[in-house]
This record gives sequence, C-alpha cells and structure tokens, in this order.
Amino acid sequence: MDSKKPSRRKFLKSGAAVAGLAAVQSASGQTAAPEARPQKSLKDLIAYGERSHFVTSIRVPVVERPSPDAFGLTFHVLSPLQDSVGIITPSSLHFVGTHRGSIVPDIDPKEHRLMIHGMVDRPLEFSMEELKRFPSVSRVHFIECLGNHSKAEYKTVQETHGLTSCSEWTGVPLSLLLKEVGVQKGAAWVVSEGSEEVKGAGSIRLAKAMDDVLVAYGQNGEALRPQQGFPLRLVVPGFEGIYNTKWLRRIKVVDRYYMTYNDYGHISNDPKVAALTFRWGPKSVITFPSGGQQLPGPGFYQITGLAWSGGGAVRRVEVSTDGGQTWKDAELRGAIHPMAHIRFGMNWKWEGQECVLQSRCTDELGDVQPTRAQVAKFFNVAPDYYHTHGVQGSDNTIQPWRVAGDGSVHNAIA
Amino acid sequence: MDSKKPSRRKFLKSGAAVAGLAAVQSASGQTAAPEARPQKSLKDLIAYGERSHFVTSIRVPVVERPSPDAFGLTFHVLSPLQDSVGIITPSSLHFVGTHRGSIVPDIDPKEHRLMIHGMVDRPLEFSMEELKRFPSVSRVHFIECLGNHSKAEYKTVQETHGLTSCSEWTGVPLSLLLKEVGVQKGAAWVVSEGSEEVKGAGSIRLAKAMDDVLVAYGQNGEALRPQQGFPLRLVVPGFEGIYNTKWLRRIKVVDRYYMTYNDYGHISNDPKVAALTFRWGPKSVITFPSGGQQLPGPGFYQITGLAWSGGGAVRRVEVSTDGGQTWKDAELRGAIHPMAHIRFGMNWKWEGQECVLQSRCTDELGDVQPTRAQVAKFFNVAPDYYHTHGVQGSDNTIQPWRVAGDGSVHNAIA
Repeated sequence: MDSKKPSRRKFLKSGAAVAGLAAVQSASGQTAAPEARPQKSLKDLIAYGERSHFVTSIRVPVVERPSPDAFGLTFHVLSPLQDSVGIITPSSLHFVGTHRGSIVPDIDPKEHRLMIHGMVDRPLEFSMEELKRFPSVSRVHFIECLGNHSKAEYKTVQETHGLTSCSEWTGVPLSLLLKEVGVQKGAAWVVSEGSEEVKGAGSIRLAKAMDDVLVAYGQNGEALRPQQGFPLRLVVPGFEGIYNTKWLRRIKVVDRYYMTYNDYGHISNDPKVAALTFRWGPKSVITFPSGGQQLPGPGFYQITGLAWSGGGAVRRVEVSTDGGQTWKDAELRGAIHPMAHIRFGMNWKWEGQECVLQSRCTDELGDVQPTRAQVAKFFNVAPDYYHTHGVQGSDNTIQPWRVAGDGSVHNAIA
Repeated sequence: MDSKKPSRRKFLKSGAAVAGLAAVQSASGQTAAPEARPQKSLKDLIAYGERSHFVTSIRVPVVERPSPDAFGLTFHVLSPLQDSVGIITPSSLHFVGTHRGSIVPDIDPKEHRLMIHGMVDRPLEFSMEELKRFPSVSRVHFIECLGNHSKAEYKTVQETHGLTSCSEWTGVPLSLLLKEVGVQKGAAWVVSEGSEEVKGAGSIRLAKAMDDVLVAYGQNGEALRPQQGFPLRLVVPGFEGIYNTKWLRRIKVVDRYYMTYNDYGHISNDPKVAALTFRWGPKSVITFPSGGQQLPGPGFYQITGLAWSGGGAVRRVEVSTDGGQTWKDAELRGAIHPMAHIRFGMNWKWEGQECVLQSRCTDELGDVQPTRAQVAKFFNVAPDYYHTHGVQGSDNTIQPWRVAGDGSVHNAIA
C-alpha cells in the first residue's frame, strides 16, 4: 500500500448486516462526562499507560447507598457490566464490597504476615516473600457478592448485576500451606480473617480449603489492588464473595463452624431466607441490549452477555427473544474456565416489535438457572421476594429485559 | 473466630520450605521510588480503582533509546516482566512499539471508520458501532515486537525480553468482514493500514487473514488503550508485532505482497538476516530469578517464567539449573491458550553454588527453542549475531541467567 489516498472514494453499504443503520447510541447512562484530555509527561507516557479520554466507563454505588460514608457505612460499588467485553474485568472496574467504608487497610507488603494456626502441628507465620517460594497457580474465577440481586426498580445491568467480576488470580493453593502446617485429626473447618477493622472473617469447610482455594497475591498480571485485598486475599472459587477474605492475615483450623461478623444474613431461623448458602448456582445476564440502552432502529444486532456458575464450568447458555416461549442456544465465545465468567453471544434481527429478552445458563452439574417465579414458588413467597427480603439468599434468577417499540430497553421484572 | 487476639503467640518456622530464610529482596532495580500516597476523593474511590502506592513497577525505554523524542524517534518501551504474575499483562504495562514518537493518534471512536476495499465485490466502510453488530470473539494472545532480542549488555529480563505482552483481545474475526465485502478471485494478500503519521502498514497472506486474525476493539475487558491502537487494531496471532496494525483504518485486498514503511529489516538481499519472517518460533524466559535480582541465601525457591510460540500451544517447558547439561520438565501453571503466554514454574533448592539457569520451550508443532550457538551455526555467523546485527531477524533463543555464589543474578550471554 503506498501513501496515496485510496483510489476508490465511494464506499457502499452492505445490504445485509449493516443495512442503512445509524450508529448505535451510547450503551449506558452510567458514564461520566468526557474530561479534558490529561496532559501527560513523556516520562509518564513511558512508565504507565492510561485509557483513552473517550472511554469514561465508571463504577457507581449500589442504588440504596448513593453516598456511602467514608467512615462507617457499607461501601458497595458496582462494575459497569454494560460496557464489558470478553471475560476479564479491568482491575480498576472490579466491583467492591466492604463493610466499614471506603477506607481500606494501607498495608506495606514487607510488613504483612499470614498466620496459620489452630488445629495444626506447626503453627506458622508467612511473609509475602515466603509465600512466593511456594508453587503458585494462575486461574480465572468470578467473585460475586451475595448482595448481587435484581429488583424491579433497578434500571441498568450495572444496578441489577454489577456486584460480580472476573479476574485471573495468581497465588498459592491453600492446600499446600495447610500441608505445610499439618492439619490435625478432627479438624473440619477453616476460619479466615482480614486486616480491616471488622476483620471480614468467614468459615469454609476443610474439604473446600483442601480442594481449590487460593491464597492469592496476583490479579490480572500484577499485585492485587488495595480494594481487592492487597497484598493478600483468599479466592474461594464459586462461593459467595464474602468468603473471599481480603487483606488476609490469619487462617485458623477448627473443628466446627464459627460464627463471624459476616454471618448476618447467612444464618436465620426463617426457612424462607436461604441459610448458609455457600455456592452460587448457574447464572447469566444479557449485557447488550440491557436496561437503559437504546437501539437506533430495526436491524441486525449481537445479543451478548455473561454466564457463570459456582457449580463448575458453564455448559450451555440459551437466549429467548419472545419472553421465554422459545429458546435458542447462544455461542460461548471464548475459553471456558470453571467457576468463571464466559461471554455468550447470538445473532439477532430485531424487526421493531416489542419483545422480552432473557438468557438461561446450564452448568456442568446440569443445574439450570431458574425464573423468579420458580424460586418464589419453591420458597412459597411473593414473586417480588428479592425485592422485599433485601439481601437474604442469593439471586441467580433469569433477568428479563423489555425492548420497547422505540428501541428503548427496560428492566422487565414485574 | 471471635475478635480476641490469637491465643497462640509463638509461631514456629517450618523445617521444610521456608527454613530460617529472610525475605527475598526486591526483585528488580527497574522500579520507581514509592510516591507519597495520592489523596483520592470518595468519588474517585468509587469510580475507578488504582493500584497500591507500594506497587511501583513501571515500563522503561529500550536501552539504546533512553530519551525518545516525542516528535520523531521510535518509541519503544519495555514491559516489566520481572514483576509479572500469571499470563495477563496489565494494559497499563503492555509494551509499546511505535514509529513516530510518543504521541499516538487521539481518535474519537464515534468518528472512526474502517475501510475494506481492493479486490472485493462490495467495498465497505464500517463505524465502530457497525463493527460491534458482528459476532465477536475473545481470545488470549501474545504480541511480540521483532525487536525483542537479547544482548550480553542487557541486564534485566525487562531489557532482554520486555517487548512481549499478552492480553485477552475481543473483536470481530477478519474473515467475517472479508466475507461481507466478498473477496474476488485472484486475491492473495491483505494490506492493513493504521491512522498514525507513518500509517504502520503491513502485508499478510489472505489465508492467514481468513484463519484467525481479529479486528479487535477490546483488551482485557475494556476498550483498547490508546498506546495499543484505540479504538481498533489488528491482532494477528503468533506473527511479529508489526503486523498487528494499530489505529486500524484501512484493509486493502490485493494480489501480491505490498512493500510498506514497516518492511525495513524484513526484506534483505543478505541471507544472513532473516527475510520476511512472519511467525514467532517457540520461546521462553525465566522471570525469576533473572538478571538484576538477588537471592538472599541458599534455600527453596520457585523458578518461574513465561513461554509462548507463534506455532500454536506450548506443549512443554524444560528448565536447566546446570548450564544446559540436564533438563527437567517445568509445570505449566494455568490454562494453555494457543499463541499466548503460559506461566511455568519449578521447585528449586539452591545450595549456594554458582550456576546457570535456562528454560526451553517446545510447541505443538514439535519445534524446540534453540540455543544462541545453534542459531549462529545455522546462519554461519558469530555467536553475538543478534548483538551485531541489530533488529534483523527474530530472536527466540534460550536465555541463560547466571546465579553467582552471593545470590546475585546476571545475564550469562557471552
């Protein structure tokens, strides 16, 4: 190709996929106004790259807590799933859930220690550098907060599903460290504790701890981010977010389940609220088209979204464009990792009619993502169960999006 | 776990893996001094997370060009591989190679267009939103600059190997777009062109274009970074970096190889310099312990590094700790993707003796990473071939690191 202008100046539009359509409008209202382009020095341009000033996707707080207090209230911020591509969540946009405000522990990794004690032969304390002398492994896993549940009044997929994210985690298998300290007979649970004010403790069964849990120091190719537990966190694949203890400083091997600060909502005498639900069931959500987005007109589109399960690998994602009457298999568009997000997609021609879009995930155990009506019937509660019961019980129900005749997209939960 | 202090206050050190060793010292001299902790507003803490102020890993320019001119000289900056974990390169730390300085095109994605023309039935121009109406795919691939070659005078793995990086790329298969425009009989090559001053053009065979090439708009879960071609680039799996055209604006389907600005160094009458070498051979490098790092003393360590090949998936990585006399299989520690980095690791007990560490990659084609002596013999040139010939020809030779008796680590290229 020489440096001349192209000789052919009239470019035809295809009669097929892109026929006569204007550009799709902004996918979300959840973006900040473009800022003035930052002036970067040459030194900065070399040292550390930044995103384009045209890219303004940001996290937002959960709807009920628009202005979290920095020194006391729960700090939960939502990942902008409507802007996501692939399966990796950029570390800067990973959801955050902490229980004592926005200020996270400022830990010097040189000073940090992990203690493992309790029912063990050799209680040990590990520095970060000592941990790095153990064999590490890197695996892609989602982490999802128990509070990630949809409600009729939530408008966007960021609001309905933004408390899940997916990263490549690197760390030492907890099983290696437990073998190093020597677990004693009769031990059945491990309790993990963070460094923050409320300690973020949680109890998991020893069998899970010996299976696939990571003591992670890496996320997406670099050290953990402070909001994700720098310098050390637990990654408990497939389990609710709260068990993935951040700023990890202590693991105690014990013989029974220990109640902790984080057990609010997990244990209840009310059988209608899920008690001690550890593992996420099969779940999926369409990220395009999703609530708050706008289709410019009839034509060809890609329906796309994310699916995951605490029960292993996603085996199938189906999509319905007629409110659940018929379903078609979507394509799984990338490498499938157990207990990780997978991107799905499906070609779709929208004729301009009002319709309801849904996705449904089936995992390797054969478990199928339920409708909200199915869950309500099972628990014998009203269909607005999740709405009225707050964060009790995990929500892996099917999310319906209604496309109106004008191309606007809305949350279709009744 | 209650809120009391641990009852056991004396923690023993294991007699095994971590016996009596002080912390490993800083892994690299290529880090910036810790900065004062930035004062972030609550709004910023919500919107977009940042790394810890204790994490100071940065890119650096290639050794020969310490102060690239912003308006003319080549801008090549090296990824800090010595600090890497897993296989994903953080987008902010991805290597950069451009040919007209540090200023990259500032492209408004709403205005950007990709033209496909030449020997096609229907020349077309695609907006970014039109491209997103095509089925996308997400795949993990490395990109490596032809200039990524080691020399005796390079001290660290950032200097010897920092022009390779690995990302999850999301985009439209080029084959779909070529089918949309209708490739005519007789077409055999495609020429891609970027938007920057020198256009960054390159020619690849039509067969490759129809195979696995992506027109990518996503990187690691978000839009491409400006230094990586925002809003659109070509990803040509396994090929030299220069074919992965950034700021992609034009693809011309043609019947023959087109010479472009980027063909300096690729075509030569001298048989001693590799001509038109497209695909990277099997390659690997140990990132720990590597040049400039310091072992605090004898004991157990993890030898770890990265391996990759343009010939598909990595099948095997071997490590030698005795200068190449004997080799042992390392573990491949993560999911293996074709034409992507894979993290390898091996347990190692260092007794305090001087020794030379090397890694050797074998890919799915059965190709084996060569020594520098083997390559020199093949081309009938001196062993310092890469040193004296500059960037001519790709370097996938085995990198030796010498561990001295005092634990310091050095480049062992003669």
